[in-house]
Amino acid sequence: MDHNKIQVGVIGCGSIGREHIERLTNVVPETEVVAVYDYVSEPAETAAQQYGATVYESGEALIRSDEVDAVLIASTDDTHAAYVMEALKQNKYVFCEKPLALSAEECEKMIEIEASQGHRLVQMGFNRRYDSGYVEMKEAIQNNEIGEPLMIHSAHRNISQSPGFKTDYAITRVAIHEIDISRWLLDEEYDEVQVLKVKQSKQTSGDWLNPQLVTFKTLSGQRVDVEVQTDGAYAYDIRCQVVGENGTLDLPDPASVVKRNNQSVSNELATTWAGRFGKSYDDEFLCWAKGILNDQLMGASTWDGYAACVTSDALIKSRDSGKPEKVTMIEQPDIYK
Amino acid sequence: MDHNKIQVGVIGCGSIGREHIERLTNVVPETEVVAVYDYVSEPAETAAQQYGATVYESGEALIRSDEVDAVLIASTDDTHAAYVMEALKQNKYVFCEKPLALSAEECEKMIEIEASQGHRLVQMGFNRRYDSGYVEMKEAIQNNEIGEPLMIHSAHRNISQSPGFKTDYAITRVAIHEIDISRWLLDEEYDEVQVLKVKQSKQTSGDWLNPQLVTFKTLSGQRVDVEVQTDGAYAYDIRCQVVGENGTLDLPDPASVVKRNNQSVSNELATTWAGRFGKSYDDEFLCWAKGILNDQLMGASTWDGYAACVTSDALIKSRDSGKPEKVTMIEQPDIYK
Amino acid sequence: MDHNKIQVGVIGCGSIGREHIERLTNVVPETEVVAVYDYVSEPAETAAQQYGATVYESGEALIRSDEVDAVLIASTDDTHAAYVMEALKQNKYVFCEKPLALSAEECEKMIEIEASQGHRLVQMGFNRRYDSGYVEMKEAIQNNEIGEPLMIHSAHRNISQSPGFKTDYAITRVAIHEIDISRWLLDEEYDEVQVLKVKQSKQTSGDWLNPQLVTFKTLSGQRVDVEVQTDGAYAYDIRCQVVGENGTLDLPDPASVVKRNNQSVSNELATTWAGRFGKSYDDEFLCWAKGILNDQLMGASTWDGYAACVTSDALIKSRDSGKPEKVTMIEQPDIYK
Amino acid sequence: MDHNKIQVGVIGCGSIGREHIERLTNVVPETEVVAVYDYVSEPAETAAQQYGATVYESGEALIRSDEVDAVLIASTDDTHAAYVMEALKQNKYVFCEKPLALSAEECEKMIEIEASQGHRLVQMGFNRRYDSGYVEMKEAIQNNEIGEPLMIHSAHRNISQSPGFKTDYAITRVAIHEIDISRWLLDEEYDEVQVLKVKQSKQTSGDWLNPQLVTFKTLSGQRVDVEVQTDGAYAYDIRCQVVGENGTLDLPDPASVVKRNNQSVSNELATTWAGRFGKSYDDEFLCWAKGILNDQLMGASTWDGYAACVTSDALIKSRDSGKPEKVTMIEQPDIYK
Repeated sequence: MDHNKIQVGVIGCGSIGREHIERLTNVVPETEVVAVYDYVSEPAETAAQQYGATVYESGEALIRSDEVDAVLIASTDDTHAAYVMEALKQNKYVFCEKPLALSAEECEKMIEIEASQGHRLVQMGFNRRYDSGYVEMKEAIQNNEIGEPLMIHSAHRNISQSPGFKTDYAITRVAIHEIDISRWLLDEEYDEVQVLKVKQSKQTSGDWLNPQLVTFKTLSGQRVDVEVQTDGAYAYDIRCQVVGENGTLDLPDPASVVKRNNQSVSNELATTWAGRFGKSYDDEFLCWAKGILNDQLMGASTWDGYAACVTSDALIKSRDSGKPEKVTMIEQPDIYK
Repeated sequence: MDHNKIQVGVIGCGSIGREHIERLTNVVPETEVVAVYDYVSEPAETAAQQYGATVYESGEALIRSDEVDAVLIASTDDTHAAYVMEALKQNKYVFCEKPLALSAEECEKMIEIEASQGHRLVQMGFNRRYDSGYVEMKEAIQNNEIGEPLMIHSAHRNISQSPGFKTDYAITRVAIHEIDISRWLLDEEYDEVQVLKVKQSKQTSGDWLNPQLVTFKTLSGQRVDVEVQTDGAYAYDIRCQVVGENGTLDLPDPASVVKRNNQSVSNELATTWAGRFGKSYDDEFLCWAKGILNDQLMGASTWDGYAACVTSDALIKSRDSGKPEKVTMIEQPDIYK
Repeated sequence: MDHNKIQVGVIGCGSIGREHIERLTNVVPETEVVAVYDYVSEPAETAAQQYGATVYESGEALIRSDEVDAVLIASTDDTHAAYVMEALKQNKYVFCEKPLALSAEECEKMIEIEASQGHRLVQMGFNRRYDSGYVEMKEAIQNNEIGEPLMIHSAHRNISQSPGFKTDYAITRVAIHEIDISRWLLDEEYDEVQVLKVKQSKQTSGDWLNPQLVTFKTLSGQRVDVEVQTDGAYAYDIRCQVVGENGTLDLPDPASVVKRNNQSVSNELATTWAGRFGKSYDDEFLCWAKGILNDQLMGASTWDGYAACVTSDALIKSRDSGKPEKVTMIEQPDIYK
Repeated sequence: MDHNKIQVGVIGCGSIGREHIERLTNVVPETEVVAVYDYVSEPAETAAQQYGATVYESGEALIRSDEVDAVLIASTDDTHAAYVMEALKQNKYVFCEKPLALSAEECEKMIEIEASQGHRLVQMGFNRRYDSGYVEMKEAIQNNEIGEPLMIHSAHRNISQSPGFKTDYAITRVAIHEIDISRWLLDEEYDEVQVLKVKQSKQTSGDWLNPQLVTFKTLSGQRVDVEVQTDGAYAYDIRCQVVGENGTLDLPDPASVVKRNNQSVSNELATTWAGRFGKSYDDEFLCWAKGILNDQLMGASTWDGYAACVTSDALIKSRDSGKPEKVTMIEQPDIYK
């Protein structure tokens, strides 16, 4: 790059794509958005106009363009894999929103290519790794403040979902955050996972399973349980407690004014993921930009995207089989260690 | 009873027996302890001297004595069933520390007799039903403050155990509290239970399994998970969260001074069950005395003791089988409804 | 006393008197109420019937009666001093609800008599000294957990008052608790006190001053501020923070279930002093009975009642003068040290 | 401005100046730092090199320079007034760190000029107005969630101070934040203020007065108390409670992981103002940039700087006189309303 800033091309200009363009433009000093693509032309053109970018006729063309140093993928889930593959072929840095792919096989191909190149090019959009609460928990574990971690108790509760929500999404779009953050906190791979059926909530606005109780067991026997409420909950509330031999760590609620009135003391909770985790997205992209400039990505990798994909598959299988299912992964290439 | 107070005979004068004698004497105005028995003579004699009671030569003799209106059983676990049976035969009120018996069959015999008499005589020592936190949670559920309960997440953490502790005791002496209180909170019977193996803590001072992860499923599909740390935990800490369709309820920590020093804000936690739940024992015995005077016991019943016994058996079976196991109970007689 | 229990005579059978009779009968094993008096006959007769006591025709007669070992004074404020004087003359133990007297002079006479007898007979009804939160704060100070105490920030907030409430009562009936508990926590006498005028609340149901801001300075220069809201507050809420050189201590809220619903997390607060401090009254009377049996009273003394009286007078003077006013006390006799 | 970004000149390149240069460069997309000055040449040159700015030979030259659109003043307190005056003369936007001046007279001159120009040019560096906790409190007041505000109880506690700290600084550099934020929260001017002497802390590393108790009374009679611990405190801890007729609002502690270990539950507190309020500085400069671009400054004004100055003077006078002192201000020009 002989220009001042990392020139980013963004594929997918829907709501999350727009938020990311805004961040790359106004929050991250090292990046500028020069190229956009969306399979619907209108949002791409709007974004292009607002941020002074060029509209491309395809994601592939955008990825191949000389003016694009790095690619951000925020398009629909089914398109991620092909775009990441193209970026790998073009040897360009890429930021991919979760999930990395719809199948483990696709992830394995990416890993093969990236590993053979001996250099990480992909950063996965697992933003919680940048949330100050989770970061503080990870540090406390590493500082041995609670001894060896043995369990995680967690909950992911949503007030509502967009139309078209399905039972699988409770895993692939919702619990996928806990799949990743629990692996990251425990620094271990999963051995076996299970979905447990639970009494259903009448607050569900569609016919999907809600809630679901999702559990992971790591190779060393640590247990993670995740209560997944995809609809009808009292707030957008994310809970996470790591239990170690000598103590526990709880993810804090966001700081909010302590109110005493009407015979009670209360704090407001978040209602949306954007309100709850906005700052973590900022830091995620600042980290990506720094990784590109240093030629050494630090955030979640293709391997992490793969692990999430394999785990999701096993969970969905378990939900259907009613039994625990194994998580089977290929050997981890050195570049991800 | 033509005398002023309920004359209680206490079987078992060990540490918990002594605490109960103290309570019946100094906290409960309606009772006095007139008779004691212990299979070791020394503690019985000491208690008798201190509280002005008569030492009996056997539990059976004590139960049959004319001066004894009601019996409290705080002897070793294996003796409970026979004493309760004797009290039922003598048609005397009895307070029995957990567990009610070592086998479901024994409980079923008691239930048969008590039901045939058409009148409750037994109150089980499930003291948490009198803890103000659990009571407040139960009321909030009944007041529909969180909608229909769907799950309970709970933890039972201990700093240490007496010598001779065994893996089974994690269920029969420790998680038995959660077996009872979860049924009571949800007002439902269990369908299926499971013990899950977890990575073990190096803080365990013996060779029993620690921690264990214990789960219950109710007939309507509600799920309860109980983390059971029997040794090495940071405090005597009891956590319980009921998750409903519209909200959650958390058992509060005991009130303690909020300290700000050394760059942190902190509260002390309890270290022993006596410190944590002392007040609930007071209220438990006050309730028992009132129940006797009104000829209508209100606390945990033979049925509740039976449910705990059957559930414990199924959990131990599950721990060995590695699978969920069914909880199978006889039909509930009307006097327990 | 050659009978089993301390035979107590109660003067004043209004609401607080009745609560105390109930406690002495059912909570304190060492006492029984044998005599009652009220200047209105009906409540005295009702209490006598319910608790098996004798109605006396005057407080003096009750105090002098041979069947009365100890006297509890819960009558109207203006009658306290004369009854205490009579008990002192009769050399009988007495429990006196706050205030000890309406004037400092009366207190000084009592002190003179009691000191000349060389033995404490009076315990003042400052129940907060028995609240577990305040007790824990006092211990933490003594254990040097926050270094030398320099300030106290506190608040006394009420939802409502009985009819007939007056501005003076904000001191003599409300802030009197903070006058005593702050002295007790700091273990120092006051040098100077002040009432500061504050913007008035429209929630006041009468024409008295509300709120008032009350401040004390101790002889060593420690400062105490007390926000006094006598009416219209969101709860019955008592706050107290001791600020030391190395940290702070906050009186905890009563433990209550943590509720998450409607996009907030909340705890209920107390609404009445009885709900908030009930347990402390139990412990106060248990302490009094023990003090009588040991012939050594431990609770708040005539001196503490005097200090509260002098401080109240100075505060009322300050409210009128708009300036700080001195707290001037006689020399402390040894029996109070 | 016909260039892309607001070109800022920074006067004062010490630690706070450097932090602001970093922010204007990397956090605020609308600004770039093109000019720097410091009365010591070395820090100016270092900053110039790092951020590609030009070093000027005087603050005045920097202010007058054509390449400078707006000025940021972070030099020593005694120089602020003259630089602001110069910026006003040059009709340039200026951001001035607190205090605005060392005397009320200087502030009045600025106000006269700015008011005569009919347009605000000055934004004061009162960063707390951008802290999410204070912002949330202000909104809750405006939404009438606690009724009419009557009092504020607050505390400003520091672990340590730089060498050379003096008693006056407890007002002019420390409590000045509470002077401003309390006015802002209550939306009222002060009538009378007072410094109260308090028992001194042995943790003070110099001979200045510590702690001091600072109080303000507003024109409508609202009372504000501020405990000011300038040294030796357990943390950098900022507390603020607004008391309204119907409830209270407490500034939240920063969110931090809840740790349970060693028989207690705890959260870490901040140790420095930078750690506690870093985000508010970001938002303060984003607001300044937006105000410049819209030709309408929104942040704290010359009037606010003046109010802080007059209040500080009265407090210092009160500290010496031992009495309350009046806060007397000129009539407020319309541009500040």
